[in-house]
Amino acid sequence: MQFELSKHPHRRYNPLKDEWILVSPHRMSRPWTGQVEKPTQSSLVPRHDPNNPLSPGAVRSNGSKNPNYTSTYIFDNDFPALLFEGPAPEENEDDLFKVEAARGSCKVMCFHPFSNLSLATMDPGQIGSVIDSWIDLMRQLSPDYLWVQIFENKGAVMGCSNPHPHCQVWSSSFLPQEIRVKDKKQREYFEKHRKPLLCDYLSKELEKKERIIVETNHWVALVPFWAVWPFESMLIPKQHVLRLQDLNIDQRKDLALAMKLLLVKYDNLFETSFPYSMGWHQAPTGSRLEGNSEEHWQLHALYFPPLLRSSNVKKFMVGYEMLANAQRDITAEEAARRLSSLPEEHYLSKKF
Amino acid sequence: MQFELSKHPHRRYNPLKDEWILVSPHRMSRPWTGQVEKPTQSSLVPRHDPNNPLSPGAVRSNGSKNPNYTSTYIFDNDFPALLFEGPAPEENEDDLFKVEAARGSCKVMCFHPFSNLSLATMDPGQIGSVIDSWIDLMRQLSPDYLWVQIFENKGAVMGCSNPHPHCQVWSSSFLPQEIRVKDKKQREYFEKHRKPLLCDYLSKELEKKERIIVETNHWVALVPFWAVWPFESMLIPKQHVLRLQDLNIDQRKDLALAMKLLLVKYDNLFETSFPYSMGWHQAPTGSRLEGNSEEHWQLHALYFPPLLRSSNVKKFMVGYEMLANAQRDITAEEAARRLSSLPEEHYLSKKF
Ligand SMILES: O=P(O)(O)O[C@H]1O[C@H](CO)[C@@H](O)[C@H](O)[C@H]1O
Ligand SMILES: O=P(O)(O)O[C@H]1O[C@H](CO)[C@@H](O)[C@H](O)[C@H]1O
Repeated sequence: MQFELSKHPHRRYNPLKDEWILVSPHRMSRPWTGQVEKPTQSSLVPRHDPNNPLSPGAVRSNGSKNPNYTSTYIFDNDFPALLFEGPAPEENEDDLFKVEAARGSCKVMCFHPFSNLSLATMDPGQIGSVIDSWIDLMRQLSPDYLWVQIFENKGAVMGCSNPHPHCQVWSSSFLPQEIRVKDKKQREYFEKHRKPLLCDYLSKELEKKERIIVETNHWVALVPFWAVWPFESMLIPKQHVLRLQDLNIDQRKDLALAMKLLLVKYDNLFETSFPYSMGWHQAPTGSRLEGNSEEHWQLHALYFPPLLRSSNVKKFMVGYEMLANAQRDITAEEAARRLSSLPEEHYLSKKF
Repeated sequence: MQFELSKHPHRRYNPLKDEWILVSPHRMSRPWTGQVEKPTQSSLVPRHDPNNPLSPGAVRSNGSKNPNYTSTYIFDNDFPALLFEGPAPEENEDDLFKVEAARGSCKVMCFHPFSNLSLATMDPGQIGSVIDSWIDLMRQLSPDYLWVQIFENKGAVMGCSNPHPHCQVWSSSFLPQEIRVKDKKQREYFEKHRKPLLCDYLSKELEKKERIIVETNHWVALVPFWAVWPFESMLIPKQHVLRLQDLNIDQRKDLALAMKLLLVKYDNLFETSFPYSMGWHQAPTGSRLEGNSEEHWQLHALYFPPLLRSSNVKKFMVGYEMLANAQRDITAEEAARRLSSLPEEHYLSKKF
């Protein structure tokens, strides 16, 4: 029998993380009688709710009042996981009980004054303002922190407690775990091949054309060969770019378009406001801003959406996945094929 | 200011995984207006539902009929993620698109004929039968597979689609990702210290007495120093034991007691049937059954429960956690203190 990626159980290797993923394509027909999620219905969210702490003019739990902002709006997280100052533990005497200080800052960025919008339903001009604000924040935070993590949790199923369109920016004095590994793996590849791993990877994907969702002048959204989540994607510039703040004006504008196209397809897939966690990975900052040794990095965004087969059935990463090995049913190729074939117009577009 | 684990943000190191965890103890007071879960109400589950495919006498979706089993019952998963046979891919020519065959088997084990019981409400004798069945399965599967993963997904919030008490056993021709790392890290420690990492760790925890939940004659349940989930625990024998099938009769009997005590405390914490994913980690099997080079391994079970502050508010491992770094609010010490101080009698005990 001939081996086929689309039919036979196999493992794929993620060279960025040095991890294997189990793919079981024959298992898509499994019936589901488990937990169903309650999709966010943006039609039920009011455009302006003065009691929503992210709304323009609202008073937040610590008593501060938001301005009547008209585009993006940034403030410090009222319950930050990281603090700028604090004492450090003493030297660790024991390998088994190692602890170190964690310093940083946590910010929140509202994308738009209206609570019933999302990046998928905002227009490219409005998305462009979000991108500009990300870049401003990167410029502002980069000198002080080794790492700036921009991320968006969207949808209640992704632990997002507020439907108002927003993201978070957690900066830290340390390289977070995921980045530490990715930094090492990309550096090893660069030392061997003298080219950034993700640039090589993208050019091969552009030849194979099997996992591309969206391609614009400067950007490509694809389902990585080693994707874990059913409809996971990576958004990556065609040129080698180290950090968000290094994007030129054309690349920025085109990014707004690429995001719009990708996010509309996501919403169209199950005709729902598609939940996900997303974030940007890029060359470290702080003491690593200077010098020429970050060439192994390539800027990219990652989207991790949990839905598997409908607006209310998600993939659970539980027992086997937590204890043994990441596992997926739908293949990356099939996920890309489904997403790329969806219309470019939002299913609710008449209403916005 | 003096650094205190219970007060100041810090990172802890997991020597089994070579990973850092961010701890933000000051953040427990964060208000929650996000998604609430629907706890499983075992009182609503009928003791016997002939339409439940896991019940004695029920007909499953593939037409097979379960026997009228009276203790545990094992059968092959009707929708296995791994198959025993299948073609293998050709040699990979490219580092960026590496793929390999994945062979294995998937079994389901019912713990008890009644659908409204769980390990927490079964008595130690009945739990003992489950342990015996695990050991029988290990003996049966060990010669053929490099890895046998016993795991239980409990509760709808953990993707468990059936309230009937059961676990799964997925065996594979490969070492799963988590095991591959743990194997390497334990081996490195053993080569350096000539003692198993987890044996050293346990003896230090028994001295410190800060993270112990339950201690019996032969077993200890504790919240690992590097725990990620709010009430995560590790169940570990006091003696050095490589695999489940190596437990002697006293250790087996005492394991049933230790599990009962731990699981009753879990249920008592939020007075709910406590959801979790759990599983056993032990020395690899198959070609690694023979020889003397698995001494770096120590048998242990891991419990990953998602609940954070009540029966319906869980910890979301999303944006920052997926993209950057595992993060927790309640410290391991505080979690252990709360669990250990709970009664040893099940909150519903009058009803069973
Ligand atoms: O096999 P089940 O119980 O239907 O499925 C559950 O456990 C599996 C193993 O952890 C996961 O892959 C599935 O996502 C989860 O829903
Ligand atoms: O900060 P939020 O949105 O309240 O919280 C959410 O995102 C955080 C960062 O990913 C997570 O640590 C929380 O578990 C999640 O509920």
